[in-house]
Parts: sequence; structure tokens; C-alpha cells
Amino acid sequence: MLLLGLMHAFPCHPLTLFVNGVACKNPNQVTVDDFSFSGLDKPGNTSNKLGSAVNLVNVEKLPGLNTFGISLARIDYAPYGLNPPHTHPRATEVLVVLEGSLYVGFVTTANKLFAKVLNKGDSFVFPIGLIHFQYNYGTTNAVAFAGLSSQNPGVIRVADALFGTKPPISDDVLMKALMVDQNTVDYIQSQFQ
Amino acid sequence: MLLLGLMHAFPCHPLTLFVNGVACKNPNQVTVDDFSFSGLDKPGNTSNKLGSAVNLVNVEKLPGLNTFGISLARIDYAPYGLNPPHTHPRATEVLVVLEGSLYVGFVTTANKLFAKVLNKGDSFVFPIGLIHFQYNYGTTNAVAFAGLSSQNPGVIRVADALFGTKPPISDDVLMKALMVDQNTVDYIQSQFQ
Amino acid sequence: MLLLGLMHAFPCHPLTLFVNGVACKNPNQVTVDDFSFSGLDKPGNTSNKLGSAVNLVNVEKLPGLNTFGISLARIDYAPYGLNPPHTHPRATEVLVVLEGSLYVGFVTTANKLFAKVLNKGDSFVFPIGLIHFQYNYGTTNAVAFAGLSSQNPGVIRVADALFGTKPPISDDVLMKALMVDQNTVDYIQSQFQ
Amino acid sequence: MLLLGLMHAFPCHPLTLFVNGVACKNPNQVTVDDFSFSGLDKPGNTSNKLGSAVNLVNVEKLPGLNTFGISLARIDYAPYGLNPPHTHPRATEVLVVLEGSLYVGFVTTANKLFAKVLNKGDSFVFPIGLIHFQYNYGTTNAVAFAGLSSQNPGVIRVADALFGTKPPISDDVLMKALMVDQNTVDYIQSQFQ
Amino acid sequence: MLLLGLMHAFPCHPLTLFVNGVACKNPNQVTVDDFSFSGLDKPGNTSNKLGSAVNLVNVEKLPGLNTFGISLARIDYAPYGLNPPHTHPRATEVLVVLEGSLYVGFVTTANKLFAKVLNKGDSFVFPIGLIHFQYNYGTTNAVAFAGLSSQNPGVIRVADALFGTKPPISDDVLMKALMVDQNTVDYIQSQFQ
Amino acid sequence: MLLLGLMHAFPCHPLTLFVNGVACKNPNQVTVDDFSFSGLDKPGNTSNKLGSAVNLVNVEKLPGLNTFGISLARIDYAPYGLNPPHTHPRATEVLVVLEGSLYVGFVTTANKLFAKVLNKGDSFVFPIGLIHFQYNYGTTNAVAFAGLSSQNPGVIRVADALFGTKPPISDDVLMKALMVDQNTVDYIQSQFQ
Repeated sequence: MLLLGLMHAFPCHPLTLFVNGVACKNPNQVTVDDFSFSGLDKPGNTSNKLGSAVNLVNVEKLPGLNTFGISLARIDYAPYGLNPPHTHPRATEVLVVLEGSLYVGFVTTANKLFAKVLNKGDSFVFPIGLIHFQYNYGTTNAVAFAGLSSQNPGVIRVADALFGTKPPISDDVLMKALMVDQNTVDYIQSQFQ
Repeated sequence: MLLLGLMHAFPCHPLTLFVNGVACKNPNQVTVDDFSFSGLDKPGNTSNKLGSAVNLVNVEKLPGLNTFGISLARIDYAPYGLNPPHTHPRATEVLVVLEGSLYVGFVTTANKLFAKVLNKGDSFVFPIGLIHFQYNYGTTNAVAFAGLSSQNPGVIRVADALFGTKPPISDDVLMKALMVDQNTVDYIQSQFQ
Repeated sequence: MLLLGLMHAFPCHPLTLFVNGVACKNPNQVTVDDFSFSGLDKPGNTSNKLGSAVNLVNVEKLPGLNTFGISLARIDYAPYGLNPPHTHPRATEVLVVLEGSLYVGFVTTANKLFAKVLNKGDSFVFPIGLIHFQYNYGTTNAVAFAGLSSQNPGVIRVADALFGTKPPISDDVLMKALMVDQNTVDYIQSQFQ
Repeated sequence: MLLLGLMHAFPCHPLTLFVNGVACKNPNQVTVDDFSFSGLDKPGNTSNKLGSAVNLVNVEKLPGLNTFGISLARIDYAPYGLNPPHTHPRATEVLVVLEGSLYVGFVTTANKLFAKVLNKGDSFVFPIGLIHFQYNYGTTNAVAFAGLSSQNPGVIRVADALFGTKPPISDDVLMKALMVDQNTVDYIQSQFQ
Repeated sequence: MLLLGLMHAFPCHPLTLFVNGVACKNPNQVTVDDFSFSGLDKPGNTSNKLGSAVNLVNVEKLPGLNTFGISLARIDYAPYGLNPPHTHPRATEVLVVLEGSLYVGFVTTANKLFAKVLNKGDSFVFPIGLIHFQYNYGTTNAVAFAGLSSQNPGVIRVADALFGTKPPISDDVLMKALMVDQNTVDYIQSQFQ
Repeated sequence: MLLLGLMHAFPCHPLTLFVNGVACKNPNQVTVDDFSFSGLDKPGNTSNKLGSAVNLVNVEKLPGLNTFGISLARIDYAPYGLNPPHTHPRATEVLVVLEGSLYVGFVTTANKLFAKVLNKGDSFVFPIGLIHFQYNYGTTNAVAFAGLSSQNPGVIRVADALFGTKPPISDDVLMKALMVDQNTVDYIQSQFQ
């Protein structure tokens, strides 16, 4: 089966002999380690242009999530670090701030911005499919944990999907969509190569 | 119930006494007209900046779609008209070209662009949640019909969600996300007010 | 795996590493052509007893529909052509008339007929599982497009399922069900061999 | 809410504060009787043209089924009694014979008849949406119990949906669909008034 | 594929070319016998400590249930026989008493007991995931049939899951959870080895 | 509507005009505060018999979770504190340890115990419907965060559901289920009053 070339077998719901979804390990070969993932105490490397790092623990890293509709993530933010506008096409996210402060927001389909400053111990909901972001506007590091309602939430960073695709979207489309001239399109594209 | 302030009652699956979702009309009051919508032979008005017009027939226009997970749309494109990069957070779209030619595409989560020219009689699939567009690169009008896998697909035009929200997303976030300076952000925002 | 004998691999949601359902192509082997199907500008051949032809573009013809819960169809009707009473066990259908006029209807579980004449540009909803039909009562050809809420809607033509099965349903059952004599049953059966 | 005119409130999953679907009783007002229904030891009245009687215990009779996707039925068959060809648009049925023998069958979308004689203690599956029947070809009563995979399965008796609707389906449609003349259509229709 | 080692192929919805879930038989190899299971007229063997026997006809015994979300069971109870407190993690159960009387009940998440005596012909709903039991407090045998809203409902007998696991749950956990001393824990554990 | 007596209206998916489930706030009245919940930096009060405290942030506390299939929790454990064997009938849980060490485990339907010691930064999956526990076997406090795959996961503490119900489950049932004498049942019950 073609899938086999792409993956190892995953454990499945121990209650389930046979399940929907990806290939299931022989239940007799599933071990407790299939349900565990370590290292979330370690900060991510935020030495990048955006100043943020996401450690998404989805079904690929934690096979025991298979078929269960949930995953988790640790997100680190350097000062002025940004988790830039993005969507999760298959998951709502609930985030809780463990350290620092974050300016967070999402945009509704009516183009209304719901934004707020979160401090330590504050949680926030980013509804499925909506464009959202978190920004560490402060001078200290920030850390957040998030739960996501899919074992494989997917991420679409909007700027990358517009300006960093292979092959590029044609200039005509981007100029008209953003109402800018070709120089501006080309400049932004150059930033995302 | 608060919903009542927002809507009239919809008919529901005639097989169903009681259904999930929005308020159902008393089945005895449902008529054949609840299952019908007219006017899709009329071209939309493409006299706008983008040169395109979408007539989305969702559950609000065609109450009989309620609970059935499908809707349809007619899309008109003037020459050089663009249905700009957008997502449907709740629907996959299958489009068929009735007149003219279109350059269409979508972007995967791996930022790969899948694009193609469609001619009359060609159909194309835009998977749920992915950013996609259609562009009439030709000198004649184009017309397409689309089916969408939700009675209320929702639309997020990416440029509007970045630059046209109320209130605006902060410049700091947009500058860092797009890697442009404040002037560029302010200029693009001014185009979407 | 036995499925492999039956099918080639389908592309899957580009956002999805592994999906429910049929075998997925290796995402690296998926091409833009998997999301496209051509030829819907061509009329179907209506030179048959019913005077109608359905070109159902389901997941077998358009592999990119896989896992997305939608398909489309072009239906052609000669004058007096009939798309006879049938059900889609897995899909609601929304139909739009492109040319000509159609008398269409569906029957509720309360045996109420909801029927209407549709003209060019009119759309209509046929709820999932209900027996429905379209009849071109006019003297010119008619053409309709339809969206269906499943990548594999299935079709059960009622008359065929009663009178054209292999092996036949026993006469005792059909006589009692339709309250007709054996001659009538045998005659109708002979029409469907 | 318009639903309220149609129904009393149903109990809901006791685990659930708020559920999808029909109006839920205040959990504090739900009693054990909402989860119970009596009288399935009593034979149905089979003194009718078909010689069969179905006692379907759906959510209307047993409110505790609400939101749980299951219902049950007792079916009685007089000698030569028939539960005529019908579909459940929202449920697969699994039937077990308690007394007597039955000739049962269903028709696939490929118009293949899967039929078999069942004796006491035999069970059988009728897949969702497929036309199926049970016939007591013997000289003694038969009794069966069935479980159905919906709290409101719905029933479409095919002959009634063709010949017994209000208003009637037009003769033109029925003649062409069944390939019979008008006299035959009119005769069968007269049987279902 | 690893699943193949665990199972034979199952038939699938005859309407469905390709389905979610377990491996599907080649539709051309599916026979009517895949939809049938016999022997439910035979009492189960209740000569055990609990005095009860459950014959659960799930997808493993009746392959035609595959993908259809339903199964059935026959349950026999000797005098004073108990189907002990258990949950079905994937199914609501609806039970009907064919012979004898049963004291049945379930516990809500608010720890409220909903219990009742059922006599012949009475039915009862046990909601998904809730702990429930049936007890034959009488001096004659009892028999019940049940429908369950999953093709593979799963069973967790609570006492076995606490005291009969391999390896055992640590005494510290059990002592604290039940607020008993080590002797009591060890004694109960010894009963479940 | 009866639901209204039980609750205030919840916000719903901002993309959704009308949604399944509980009453939706008028979208125009939804505010950013509906998507936020504070205080998760505060330890729970573990001064109780079990030495643990769960702060479950479900849809009642964080209305913005409505219809989104996710919630979160903070769990505090005193030294030797136990989150006792329990199930979430509607959710899989993924837990990450923020401080201290925990001995955690779940029991499969085959009564196999999957248990492991978790340290800071380790995560673990507790599959939906399975009995599981966390035990702080160490001498310092422990803290964990959890994501759960339902906006209203529900909790069934097994010992409470057996011994602490109102009214109590009959001694006959409990004696037979646990294979203990009446004194033991009565003693344990007395601990849960």
C-alpha cells in the first residue's frame, strides 16, 4: 500500500480492533512508549526572523494520538517574537500562557479583529480555520502551551502561502489581490525565497 | 431563543422530525419554494476593483439546503477579473467553467502551488481550507458554477483579513509577518479601507 | 491489501499526511491533474429509452475529490426525456438548469410530493435519500448541472431495483408490494431485462 | 422556538450539559421513565393488506434515545405477510428472527439481489439506504426484532412513494419510469389511494 | 499492511466502492452470507461466577456490519445472574427483555443512579460511556436482546479494569482511590486473577 | 426553550451564522472576552482526601469553546496526590507535566495496563473512554496541563460511580461485581457518602 512508504504503523485506540484512518499497528505490538513524547520542557530555538518557535506534537511525533482528534504544542517567543498570521485548517486551538505576555488575535469572516493582551495563566481560543497570530510585544521571553482539536492540525502561514510558494503565484494575481504594484510584489516575494 | 432574532426558520430534511442545527420550520409549513432559488442565469456585476462577482447560494438564500452540507455558486469574471486568494473554512469547492478560460490554483500546506488553465467544460477541485484563486487572464468574460461541501461555506479573503479588519491588525504584526516597512503596510491598508 | 486490486491510489487532502478512506497517493506523486476533469461541455448521449444521460463526476473520475464529500454531474435531457425516480443514498443534490425547462420533484417520507417546473437559472434541492426525478416535458433539449454532497453519491433507480435485479425478486413479493397480478409483474420485469 | 410547537422536550445524554439536536429536557427533570418503553411483548396487528406490522420504537416513543443514534423495532408477520420493499434513509438495520421463518433480501446499487431464508435465531444486515424486504412465506406467524442505527431512521415504502403520493406523480413520469401504459399506472395508483 | 495479519477482509456497504475503516472485501467477492449470523436462539452458558453470558454479534462475527455503526447482542441471565457494571466506550445500548425480569440501571456523571425493574417486553436505554448493569433478581432465567450503536462497541468491566489488569495497578493507587487498606485491595485483586 | 433556563447563550464559531448545538449568542453580541479565561497560573487546592485538584476549563467556563471540540485543564497534585481512576466519555486527553513527576496509566479493553513515570516536559495520551489515573508518588508538588478533545469532556470517577451514587447501587450488585462480602461493600460505600 502506498501509504506504507510514507510512514510507520501507528497504534490505534486500544479499544478498537480496526479503526478508520492511518495504518494501525498490530495491537499486540503497541507499547506504552507509543503514547508518550518527551522534551517539552526545552525552549524552542527562536533565533530566526520571526523570533518564535513552534514545537507541534502531532500524530507523527506522538503516534498514540492517532484517530483521537487532539494534539498539543509548545510555542516560544523571543522579545518582539511573532507567531505570524496563520490558519489551522483542521483544528481549533486553545492556548495558555505560561510565561510572559502576548498580544493575540483572530479575524472573523466579517473581517472583525478580536484581539487581547494575555498574561501568565490566561487562556484563549482561536477558532478553526480563522487567521490568527500571537505577538510578544514585551522585552522578556514568553512561553505558551496549546491544545489543538486534530491529531494533524496543519498550518498555513498566510504570507508564505501568498509570497513563498513553489512555483510563485503570478504577479498579476498578487498585484490585483493586494492592490500593489509589481515592485512591491517582487520585493515581498524576495523576502520569502 | 437568541437565534430567532437573527433568522427566520428554515425547512429541514423532510425525512427528519427533528434535526441538528438551525431552527427548523414546522414541517407542515414547508413548501416546495423552500427548496428552490432562481436567477442564476443572470450575470453578476463585475464592475468593481477585482472584476469579479460571486453569487453564493447558501442556506440563507436557499433554505432547503439546511442540514444537507452542500451549496452552490455562480461566479462571473470580467476580462482580467480575479476571484482573489481566499479560503472556505468549511467547504471543498468543485468548479466547472461554462464560458471563457481561467487560470486557477491552490496552495498546499507545504506551500506548493497547484495551478492550471481551465477551458470551457473543465472542472477543478479546491480542497477545504486551502488558499485558492481564479483569474480570467483573457479578454472575454468568463463564467463558472461551483458546488461547495457545506450549506454555509464561509469565505475568508486573505488580503482583507490582513489589511482590512476593524480594528486594524497592529503595524508591528503586519510588518514582521510580511517583512515590509511601515509605509508599505500603511499603503496596503489604505487600499482596503 | 485487497483494496489495491480494485483501484489505483487517490490523491488526498494536500493538508493531510494520512487520511481516512481509500488508499492515498504518496503526496509527492500527486499532480495538478488529479484535481481536474474535462469534457463537461459535451452533451451526453440521450438516445436511450429514457431520453436522458447523466455524467456523474465522482471520485473515480476526479480523484482529487477523495475525502472531500462533494461531486458534480452534468445531466442532459432530450425532449420528453426523464431522469427516472431514484435515490442517492449518500448525498443531497442541488441542481441548476442551464438550458430548457424541467418538471422536477421529490417525495417525502410522508408520501407528499414536492414538485415544480424549473426554467433556465432556477436551482432546486433534492434531499438525501429521497426518491426524486426530473422530466423534460418540453420540445427542446434541456441541460442541468448538479452538485452532490458526497464524493461517491451512489444511485438507486427504483424501477430497476424492483424489476431489474439479478436474480429477480420473487413474484410473490412484487405482486403483494405493488398489489398487481403476476402477469403485470412479469411484463414489467421483461422491460428491465 | 418553532420546534417547541412540534414536540415536547426530550432528555439528552446525561453526560451532556448541552447537546446537538432536538430540544433537551432540563437534566434535573429527566426521570428513569424517559429511558424506558413497554409493550414489545405484544404482537402487532397484522390484519391488513400486507399482513405485517412494524412497531418502531424511535425517539418519539422512547425519548431517552435522543442524540444516541439507535432505535429498535418489533415486526410481526402473518402467514404470507410482507414487510414490502422499503428503505431507511438514515439507518442500517440488523434483524433477528425470534419465531418462524422469513425470506429476506436487499438490492445493491448494482441491482444485485442478496436474499436468504432466515430461521429462528438467524440475524441479517440491511445496509443503510438500500431497498430491502422481509417475506413470511410460511404458514405460521413470524416475529423479528431489529436494531436500527438512528434514533429516527425514517421509512420510505417504495410502492407508496411512486403510486401513493399526494398529489400523485404525473402519469408521464410513471409510465416512462416503469415502461408501462397509462392503464397500468392508473390501476396501480388506484390500489394505493 | 499490518492490519492484514489481524483480520480477514470485511464486506462493506454495497453502495460504496471504497469506504473508511477496515479492509474491504472486493465487492465482487462479497456474498449474502457476509450479512448473516446464526445461533441467537441458543442460550449462552451462564455457569460462571457472575451467572450471565453475553453473545455480542459485532463486526468480527457478522462482517456485513462493517462501517454501519450497529451491532446486536443476546444476553442470558441465570437466577441471580449479573451483567456487572461496565461501559461501552463507543455505543449506546437499547435492551429489550424477552424472558424473565431484570433490575437494570446506569449512573450519570453526576453520580445519580437511574434504575428500574424491567419485565418481559420492556426496553431500556443505556447511554454511551455510562456505567450500567443488569441483574436478574428472580428465580427463573432471563433473556434479553440488545442493539448497540457501533459495529465494535467495546466493553470495559469496571471491576476487572481496576483489579484484574496485567500488570496490576499499584496498591497505592487502588487503596487511595477506593479508600480501603492494602488487605482489602489484595483480597479483591486475588478474586480477579 | 428549556435549555435557556439552564444556561446563558454561548458564542459560536465566528465563521458560522448558525451552528449545531447549544444556543448561540447573537454574533453581534459576542466579545473577545468570550474567548478568554484567566487564572490558570494559580495552583488548585489539593487539601482533600485525594490530594489533587482539577481545574477543567470547559465550555461553561470558556464559552468560546462552544462547538469546537476542545477544552483544557490544569491539574495539581500534592505529594502522594492521586487523580483517581476515571474516564472521559467524550474525550481523549493529552497531558504534559510542568512540574514534578507522575506515575500515570490507562487500562485497555483487554485489561492490559499501560503505565509509565512521567517527568517534567513529558506528555502522555489517555484514549477516549478508557479508565486512567495520575499519581504523584514523589515528595514535591506536581503540576500538569491537559488538552481534551471535547468542549465538554465529562468525568466519571469509577469509585464514586460504584459506591457514591444517589441512591446507592444495591448491595447484591456490588457484592457480586467485586466478589466481596456485604461488610466490605458497606464500608467502602460509607467512605463515599
